[in-house]
Amino acid sequence: MEFLDPATARTWLGTAVAQARAGLEEGGIPVGAALYGADGTLLGRGRNRRVQDGDPSMHAETAAFRAAGRQRSYRGTTMVTTLSPCWYCSGLVRQFGISRVVIGEAVTFHGGHDWLAEHGVEIVLLDDPECAELMRNFIRHHPDLWNEDIGE
Amino acid sequence: MEFLDPATARTWLGTAVAQARAGLEEGGIPVGAALYGADGTLLGRGRNRRVQDGDPSMHAETAAFRAAGRQRSYRGTTMVTTLSPCWYCSGLVRQFGISRVVIGEAVTFHGGHDWLAEHGVEIVLLDDPECAELMRNFIRHHPDLWNEDIGE
Repeated sequence: MEFLDPATARTWLGTAVAQARAGLEEGGIPVGAALYGADGTLLGRGRNRRVQDGDPSMHAETAAFRAAGRQRSYRGTTMVTTLSPCWYCSGLVRQFGISRVVIGEAVTFHGGHDWLAEHGVEIVLLDDPECAELMRNFIRHHPDLWNEDIGE
Repeated sequence: MEFLDPATARTWLGTAVAQARAGLEEGGIPVGAALYGADGTLLGRGRNRRVQDGDPSMHAETAAFRAAGRQRSYRGTTMVTTLSPCWYCSGLVRQFGISRVVIGEAVTFHGGHDWLAEHGVEIVLLDDPECAELMRNFIRHHPDLWNEDIGE
């Protein structure tokens, strides 16, 4: 797969952050994601919709995957997410053969990205302070909602 | 967790099989699932909706999980599925702490249920010939659709 230059990774993360912020304004859990094609086309983007739609199945990554519609192959695609993907979303990445995951931060929650790396997925961890601050604030004010979203 | 008696397991599998058959009649991929509560209440059921809704995120298990709506805890719940859960759906089970998975068959597709067993999920594999026949026929007639659904 082609090398992902840091500037592109940051731009793509911006798409996911915008989704997370839109979710926060709606009263939702501020995690956002976007799926980019091998050629850099934005295929889909989305945000956690537990609160907005009462839908526990729509994590940010699954929402972005859904928004991209049916695809014959995910080879060369990149899932960009503001937060380390949970097991549910990591399973999505592995099953469908998404090639790369760009992660805003893994400080407030450490999901399955090490497991994905072990199984050949390229992981780009950006350690972004804006993403971490978004989650830290949210978890502080809504611990019950956050725990519900990760099944704890 | 309470012991699941074989008759109940078969009855619950029947709920999932009915979903799979309904999906087949709609022209969809014949995998069905149901989520049962710790007290045996049916919380939600669903079927693969890739073809019907053009939605790649709705595997049978995720559809049943979604239909159950927001739950504070999945402790003691059972996911019943006609087919061994793929990594995406296995990740769902692990993340949300679903306690048990009842599986119709794992012959036509072997997903992540061994991994779930390693992580403390109770696995009940029924080796049901009806479930296997449903999938075998479907895969024979629609190999491309099936490969698309599992990202192959």
